[in-house]
Amino acid sequence: MTARTDVEQVELANTTFYEAMERGDLDALTALWLADEDGISCVHPGWPVLSGRAEVLRSYALIMANTEYIQFFLTDVAVSVSGDTALVTCTENILSGGPAEESGELGPLVGQLVVATNVFRRTGDGWRVWSHHGSPVLTETDEEEDEEPSS
Amino acid sequence: MTARTDVEQVELANTTFYEAMERGDLDALTALWLADEDGISCVHPGWPVLSGRAEVLRSYALIMANTEYIQFFLTDVAVSVSGDTALVTCTENILSGGPAEESGELGPLVGQLVVATNVFRRTGDGWRVWSHHGSPVLTETDEEEDEEPSS
Repeated sequence: MTARTDVEQVELANTTFYEAMERGDLDALTALWLADEDGISCVHPGWPVLSGRAEVLRSYALIMANTEYIQFFLTDVAVSVSGDTALVTCTENILSGGPAEESGELGPLVGQLVVATNVFRRTGDGWRVWSHHGSPVLTETDEEEDEEPSS
Repeated sequence: MTARTDVEQVELANTTFYEAMERGDLDALTALWLADEDGISCVHPGWPVLSGRAEVLRSYALIMANTEYIQFFLTDVAVSVSGDTALVTCTENILSGGPAEESGELGPLVGQLVVATNVFRRTGDGWRVWSHHGSPVLTETDEEEDEEPSS
């Protein structure tokens, strides 16, 4: 096992989270959320708060059932670690398509700009998602917000 | 000092955060955010991510300058504490008004439904805000969320 810094581990957990969504892999996604039954929470863009494993995982099953294709281009990924908790903010540049109207055809692709705050907790099995909050970016800003994470 | 459980302390810190906003008290709000220069982050409804104390506090100064009146009716407050970190989710039922068009007159009041995920960290001076993420609720839910501001 390669020794990784906390920040690297958290960034990897964050990437893995979005990859599970891209693959529509509900089992992988389920494993990434904290086993804590009640304490977890999730806000999808424009949605109210969902709390607890049952409600959160049901929402992902629903979203996956209605999403034929989804891809996340993550930018502005910032990680802040304190003890056994980590805070990740990132911009999700999403390209997605719903189920086809006619069989075999992909629905029209839609681009969406979402910002997310993801909170992770360190467990014996690695970093797990405690909270995900995604929201649509609606306002215009002066600054270009698509700065590349130049490092 | 009254002995309070962690959950009670965090709930109080969360309430204090919104009360500082209601009073337009930037100093109180500044004191409530973690002193951590870089690690803090903030997403106002519809905004991109703001990072670091300077950027976050500037945004509050701007919002306060453009807000004549704001009141938060918090509902669905849920607190989850793990070690020195706490996660709060709540619904912010906001009633606000911009500066008056004519002097002495309050601008029209607007109702807004926002959900927030607030992350706090325990410090020697009490619980401080590490991250605030607020987002508009856009979807229809079973519950009525369209209280008419016409009264």
